[in-house]
Amino acid sequence: MKKKYLRELEKYNKLISRVNVVSDEYNGIYKRYCYPVLTRKHVPLSWRYDLNEESNPNFIETLGIDAVFNPGAIELSGKFYLVTRMEGSDRKSFFAIARSDNGIDNFKFINYPVVIPDTNPYETNLYDMRLTKHEDGFIYGIFCSERKDPSVEKGDLSSAIAEAGIVRTKDLKTWERMPNLKTTSPQQRNVVLHPEFVNGKYLLYTRPMDGFIDTGSESGICFGYSDTMENAIIKKETVLSPRKYHTITESKNGAGCVPIKTKKGWIHIAHGVRNTAVGLRYVIYLFVTDLLNPEKVIAAPGGYLIAPFGEERVGDVSNVVFTNGVIARRNGDVFIYYASCDTRIHVATTTVDLLLEYAYATPSDPLRSYDCVQQRIELIKRNIEGGVENE
Amino acid sequence: MKKKYLRELEKYNKLISRVNVVSDEYNGIYKRYCYPVLTRKHVPLSWRYDLNEESNPNFIETLGIDAVFNPGAIELSGKFYLVTRMEGSDRKSFFAIARSDNGIDNFKFINYPVVIPDTNPYETNLYDMRLTKHEDGFIYGIFCSERKDPSVEKGDLSSAIAEAGIVRTKDLKTWERMPNLKTTSPQQRNVVLHPEFVNGKYLLYTRPMDGFIDTGSESGICFGYSDTMENAIIKKETVLSPRKYHTITESKNGAGCVPIKTKKGWIHIAHGVRNTAVGLRYVIYLFVTDLLNPEKVIAAPGGYLIAPFGEERVGDVSNVVFTNGVIARRNGDVFIYYASCDTRIHVATTTVDLLLEYAYATPSDPLRSYDCVQQRIELIKRNIEGGVENE
Repeated sequence: MKKKYLRELEKYNKLISRVNVVSDEYNGIYKRYCYPVLTRKHVPLSWRYDLNEESNPNFIETLGIDAVFNPGAIELSGKFYLVTRMEGSDRKSFFAIARSDNGIDNFKFINYPVVIPDTNPYETNLYDMRLTKHEDGFIYGIFCSERKDPSVEKGDLSSAIAEAGIVRTKDLKTWERMPNLKTTSPQQRNVVLHPEFVNGKYLLYTRPMDGFIDTGSESGICFGYSDTMENAIIKKETVLSPRKYHTITESKNGAGCVPIKTKKGWIHIAHGVRNTAVGLRYVIYLFVTDLLNPEKVIAAPGGYLIAPFGEERVGDVSNVVFTNGVIARRNGDVFIYYASCDTRIHVATTTVDLLLEYAYATPSDPLRSYDCVQQRIELIKRNIEGGVENE
Repeated sequence: MKKKYLRELEKYNKLISRVNVVSDEYNGIYKRYCYPVLTRKHVPLSWRYDLNEESNPNFIETLGIDAVFNPGAIELSGKFYLVTRMEGSDRKSFFAIARSDNGIDNFKFINYPVVIPDTNPYETNLYDMRLTKHEDGFIYGIFCSERKDPSVEKGDLSSAIAEAGIVRTKDLKTWERMPNLKTTSPQQRNVVLHPEFVNGKYLLYTRPMDGFIDTGSESGICFGYSDTMENAIIKKETVLSPRKYHTITESKNGAGCVPIKTKKGWIHIAHGVRNTAVGLRYVIYLFVTDLLNPEKVIAAPGGYLIAPFGEERVGDVSNVVFTNGVIARRNGDVFIYYASCDTRIHVATTTVDLLLEYAYATPSDPLRSYDCVQQRIELIKRNIEGGVENE
């Protein structure tokens, strides 16, 4: 056993100390990296194997991990923390924390998987935490809390009810659980807490759904207010970033990271979904809301910010990039953590200034092919007038 | 033509004589291999091309093969035989036999594609044979026999009725066909014959379905008994390995290989299916039934045994691994033949002892995220108490 263990340990140590490298995939808005920052192979051996030579002489895997994805992200004391969604080979998701000094490599899982207080015996799965450092002094974790839908017909085992679970902490070690968010929608996913009070209330971004998969008629990313987070209730949800025909948000969309405060407004990095012949396709997009009135969208560049490319295209749930964790540092550096295909985590690095530049330089989606062509011809003409060299 | 033929022949000969290599993907339970054991490129040129220089001067392909997958497997006189599902470029499946001396490489198709006696002019497609060396002296092949569903509305051409076809042989050359299995279920797939009599009867594992895709309300892997295989009838099906919410068998499951007899019980290697945003995902799992009472599950390790990784993830029907053929040798060696994505065949090698160790070392799925975290924390704590090095 010892020999097999040491060989796997060497592979593990090599992996978690691998230096990440900026990839060749350029767009000037952000940098992609060659290697994912976290995969199932980054999970410590002690989390997967019984390391006792007597009880596990053949060094066989005891509790397999299938995937590490969709992390909440937060900076604490200058270090980068990802509260990842970890999925066992048994399909159950839970949270586990990885830390890095530079945010682009050397992420290492710490302590134990997170124990979220158990408040409902029917709650089956937990995933996709957003971490908000709120001005009330707490770090809130809003996540998806899922249980079987008891109302559906016998035989349909996959219908579930999704609600927004709420925990808070000050140190990522002790987690206090509050009642799940209450809204008028039967289903709720992709809920994000705004980091500041707005008119003395907690502002939350929601994505009401009529069913577990069906987004219903009134949908898109919404917002609503709650007086408290200790028994959070939103009585009214208003659409902020709607779904639209033949756009990247045609089938559904949902809030991603906690909005980033900038001088020009709040940057939102969200996801949009369209349907294809082989299922849904998830991409990441950006919009900006007014600094003083976060109910108002002031910039919405057309199209996606990040789509899956290369190896990102394939995984447990292919054709997906998704983000629920971005770290914006005081110096303006931005680290976008995005998962591909419910399988692994990548990072894209940029700055607040570059994201704002993109938000205003790229025109909004004109919604029709004819008008898209006009946008593009105008760009090309300007370039030709300016003189295009050697192209 | 000669030149083109010789070039292709060289490629073919190189491929079928390539030595297989154990992959770097470790879990201690089984070994994966770098190369698939059979692909469409392993099909002899004489099965695909008209080799006559006069009638085919340009050496163009005459009858294309799309995929080779889902094989039944059996050891005869120390050699490894796979009765593969072969799919032509015309989408019709049929059976073809490949043989190897060591079970991990050098598989070569022999004779002709198998002729299954034609007993029903409406029978359209045949696939996924399980080969059982029964103690009655015959080798039985149970396969899926599919025909168009005459009851569905005009215009829907994809609805079909699936039944379990039955053949028997002694030499894999001459195949005697018996009437299809009769059960009370309108649809039947993934039927496997147990290798021994149980109380003087034939024991079959079934997977009743209400519709072609819908597994219906009462489902999971079932078992039932028939007095004879010459006119096999099962009057009652009882659930053995049920479907369960938020597990790897949520959407459906089905028996895989013929159960492996061991001192501790019968090892079953089956498949489980869940739904995703991009369609179904198939993984392979294991459970053990009582040696004397095969109706009783005595070990059910949580999660999957094999999931698609790397190149296995993508193919004609992506996100699928499937097995219907395992060879367990007298010396305890086990060869699991599994197909990925309805496209190609791989092998994973292990032993009866390692599979049993896994079956008991990995705890059962506790069905809830909270309890999965507790399982894992317990494992980590034990490891920390034992002293974790350099991790």
